[in-house]
Amino acid sequence: MTKSFDPASLTYDANGLLPCIAQDHATGEVLMLAWMNAASVARTLETGKVTYWSRSRQSFWVKGESSGHHQALVELRLDCDRDCLLALVTQEGPACHTNRRSCFYTAIRQGEEVEILAPMV
Amino acid sequence: MTKSFDPASLTYDANGLLPCIAQDHATGEVLMLAWMNAASVARTLETGKVTYWSRSRQSFWVKGESSGHHQALVELRLDCDRDCLLALVTQEGPACHTNRRSCFYTAIRQGEEVEILAPMV
Repeated sequence: MTKSFDPASLTYDANGLLPCIAQDHATGEVLMLAWMNAASVARTLETGKVTYWSRSRQSFWVKGESSGHHQALVELRLDCDRDCLLALVTQEGPACHTNRRSCFYTAIRQGEEVEILAPMV
Repeated sequence: MTKSFDPASLTYDANGLLPCIAQDHATGEVLMLAWMNAASVARTLETGKVTYWSRSRQSFWVKGESSGHHQALVELRLDCDRDCLLALVTQEGPACHTNRRSCFYTAIRQGEEVEILAPMV
């Protein structure tokens, strides 16, 4: 049983945004979390290029458009509350602006922050 | 090189919250996303039980406390902007209140919503 998907049917916060987790389709690695509004959800599905909404720039953010580190959409999923998305992606190069594969490169171990991923070369 | 971790050093939103992604430590499956404030980050690290902040109940939410479906913390990681967490966990049973392993059980395929995970039995 399926029903047609409408981006407007998702639950957005007071700023019209919801979080989207990007996960490497092949390895399962969680790469980053960024935000989408209804229009960026629609663009992501239409173009196959993961398109966030930049809160700092207040504009669409086609991942990789300036860096070249594109995120190609493999599949978009939504959660039970319809207020969070999971994008399975093919990531070219680093997802993080620090040049690391994932933004989650800091672990908390025995109360200390430990860097567990080096920048890609 | 390490530095001591302080929950107050994270960046929280206007409500004092940040999103935390729970990922199955063993399989890499993304299970859910929920919210934490500084006190729930501290409790999670102190107790080893993933402890969110329930926005609907405005109270601590020790995952599994009422359902029995505990999330044991394996490792907590933070992202480059320090405004999002990734919890690697050992999840007992379903993470989702619908009794599914993951909250992300709906995929968007060819414009249709498709249920890809059945409730656990």
